[in-house]
Amino acid sequence: MLSHGVFQFRCMTTLDDVLTTVSERVTPTAEERQRLSTAAATLTDRARAAIDDRGLDADVIQVGSTARGTWLAGDRDIDLFIRFPPDLPREDLETYGLDIGHEVLPDGHQEYAEHPYVKGDVDGFDVDCVPCYRVESATDIRSAVDRTPFHTQYLEARIDEDLAGDVRVFKRFLKGIGAYGSDLKTRGFSGYLSELLVVEHGGVIPLLKAAVDWHPPVEFDPEGHGTTTFDDPLVVIDPTDPDRNVAAVCSAENVARLQHYARELLANPQLGLFFPAEPEPLSADEIRERLARRETAPLALAFETPDIVDDQLYPQLQKSLAGIESGLEGHDFDVFRSDLFVDEDSDTTVLLFELSTAQLPAVERHEGPPVAVRDHATGFFEAYADDDSCFGPFLDGDRYVVERPREWTDATDYLESDALLEVGLGVRIEEALGDDYELLVDEEIVELVETIGMGLTEYLTPQP
Amino acid sequence: MLSHGVFQFRCMTTLDDVLTTVSERVTPTAEERQRLSTAAATLTDRARAAIDDRGLDADVIQVGSTARGTWLAGDRDIDLFIRFPPDLPREDLETYGLDIGHEVLPDGHQEYAEHPYVKGDVDGFDVDCVPCYRVESATDIRSAVDRTPFHTQYLEARIDEDLAGDVRVFKRFLKGIGAYGSDLKTRGFSGYLSELLVVEHGGVIPLLKAAVDWHPPVEFDPEGHGTTTFDDPLVVIDPTDPDRNVAAVCSAENVARLQHYARELLANPQLGLFFPAEPEPLSADEIRERLARRETAPLALAFETPDIVDDQLYPQLQKSLAGIESGLEGHDFDVFRSDLFVDEDSDTTVLLFELSTAQLPAVERHEGPPVAVRDHATGFFEAYADDDSCFGPFLDGDRYVVERPREWTDATDYLESDALLEVGLGVRIEEALGDDYELLVDEEIVELVETIGMGLTEYLTPQP
Repeated sequence: MLSHGVFQFRCMTTLDDVLTTVSERVTPTAEERQRLSTAAATLTDRARAAIDDRGLDADVIQVGSTARGTWLAGDRDIDLFIRFPPDLPREDLETYGLDIGHEVLPDGHQEYAEHPYVKGDVDGFDVDCVPCYRVESATDIRSAVDRTPFHTQYLEARIDEDLAGDVRVFKRFLKGIGAYGSDLKTRGFSGYLSELLVVEHGGVIPLLKAAVDWHPPVEFDPEGHGTTTFDDPLVVIDPTDPDRNVAAVCSAENVARLQHYARELLANPQLGLFFPAEPEPLSADEIRERLARRETAPLALAFETPDIVDDQLYPQLQKSLAGIESGLEGHDFDVFRSDLFVDEDSDTTVLLFELSTAQLPAVERHEGPPVAVRDHATGFFEAYADDDSCFGPFLDGDRYVVERPREWTDATDYLESDALLEVGLGVRIEEALGDDYELLVDEEIVELVETIGMGLTEYLTPQP
Repeated sequence: MLSHGVFQFRCMTTLDDVLTTVSERVTPTAEERQRLSTAAATLTDRARAAIDDRGLDADVIQVGSTARGTWLAGDRDIDLFIRFPPDLPREDLETYGLDIGHEVLPDGHQEYAEHPYVKGDVDGFDVDCVPCYRVESATDIRSAVDRTPFHTQYLEARIDEDLAGDVRVFKRFLKGIGAYGSDLKTRGFSGYLSELLVVEHGGVIPLLKAAVDWHPPVEFDPEGHGTTTFDDPLVVIDPTDPDRNVAAVCSAENVARLQHYARELLANPQLGLFFPAEPEPLSADEIRERLARRETAPLALAFETPDIVDDQLYPQLQKSLAGIESGLEGHDFDVFRSDLFVDEDSDTTVLLFELSTAQLPAVERHEGPPVAVRDHATGFFEAYADDDSCFGPFLDGDRYVVERPREWTDATDYLESDALLEVGLGVRIEEALGDDYELLVDEEIVELVETIGMGLTEYLTPQP
């Protein structure tokens, strides 16, 4: 049953219908649960045997949504943590961790987060076997993964099967509106954050009804133990660590997105918000027509995507987008809108800058000091007085002004020049651009339909 | 002899040479003085006779630079003031004033300042015969002209023949650099202000050497009786009225202009600053070439100059220039530079707006409220959600944004429309534009060489 309060009758019925349908679709079947449970038990036994064989003082704990019963039907992640004593040197933890991991997952391979771990596929489940320290409390952690078992313990004690249903519905809602995930591409709501919010409000409907009236910054502190002030739009003090905001990575835009779609859902309950249809991509002609209708000057930089993980790639791309945008604006090119697109199939990344105009006057206004500031003023006047390429210096109010030749009159020239590499860029993006890139201007951008067609579709039919 | 202090030897000599030459050119000859003196005496006698004929309690006083001996050779203004007792009704003052004026100047005609007066030509002199009240002190005045006799009395007591020479040199300097005159076209230094400054500094050279290091606001209070605070770049408390700033009309630009050219003169003494050569007007081809080299989008409104005095015309033109400029900027057209030109021969006025670009995108960004402000946010979203002419609404941070059709994409269309008359315009300019105007675009502006060729020359070869 879904928890919810009083609601206007016709809508309540419909909302109830919608949420019931969502819940049915996202609740794992008994058979799926059984298969997951069996797989997890087998893996745990293997890990315990590997620990015992080595005479180590370690234990095994299953964490994450599959441990808490809050996973969505079809999600197939099993997370096993091997917990070592805190006095074990980090080097040994890594050696033993990988050793046990490879024994649990004989076909697995090594990956690297804060320290290395083993990832593998078992019976169709995607398994992570991660070493961590068995610290006394979440405030004593030595690396971020040490915190995870505490989160699982905290939520396990507070989420019964009813509330687990609400958690699944809320997560599906966040996925549907594109706000689920604390990765640095999405900057949305993590699983742990979603579950804490449902627990805090006692269900998904009270949560959604509260969210529509949030006035960020919004703060929750389930254990009433927070001591630190955070400058984030959403603050949820970690029940296992008073100094941590669980929602630190969640952007203001995703908080607003939740509010917007929660209002939509309550006003007009619809399954499509949970399971949105993949939008129909615009054809090349449609993209050309919609771009042309805007009468802007779009410019796109296309280059090979650097081979780094998304959590490194996206911050570097965002930094580069902002850096080039401020380079353009610094030369007086007004950026009307900008966006970035990554096509994984073709390893193509595109940074798009839509300018109000790509051409500027040949001269730029350059304000000098007030005439009264004698040394500066005289220096300025003498620097330009005999320069035939300039108009002026003349007076505007109490200052000298000169109109001098503009460094860049065409944004295309600027983006084709080495000056592009002087702005703030992510390090691997700077390498990629230094290596090679293609500049597409106006209609040429339509050629990108082959790679980032869906991205251009979303750019030209923007939604909240 | 010109008063001046210690100065670097080579320059002192040269500066001295220059100032001596200037002084020789601007000092009226004995013959000119005699002719003026004779004319003034004749006119004064006529006025006294007219007063006696009517049995009036009035006296006659000569005011202005010709009364004080500070006029520049060739200036031929004689100002006669007829002073009536303060208890005379204003209506009678006007009647008697005009009556006497016409008797003094039989070929004169009536003009109107704060009240009517008679203006006429006598022996090549330009004579004003102005009625005013004989008040006890300048703080009791009933109209601005009542103050003038006090100014003349104050200066007469303080300017000997030596200092009069310095006054003439300083006035000629201000004329040469275009900063002389308190009319509302110039907004420069009045004669009275110039004389007070020379008296205050004890000569023209100490004045110029002080001016180069001014840090506006600069304040002088010769009588040490000021009580009011003024928000002007130059403040000279009127010795005859503690509540009045003699320099109130002097613009920051003209103060800066004095500072700039004073530095030029001291660094490189040259007669040309006092008697600048009329600049050679640019030819149509030169104007075309210089305009084109800027790669801007110039637009000009040309219309018939309203038939009003300059002190009404220029403030109205300045208001109109600023109003249209803010109309353009309000529609996102960046005004690179603007200026106004009046050709008296052809009664043509031109307002010139040089834009960075005259074309803008078909869409404009329109920011909505933060999503959290529920009523406004919902209203905004609903207003645009189903509008196919718009892109969005979408989210940017915590706000809705929509890209909607822009009202004006071409500045030419805007300036040709009735929207032009909705901005802040001087009343007679609004009438003139409402009546008829011509819009000239880009190269068409070169056609204006016939009327405002000198104005365009100065615009395209701007000087301090």
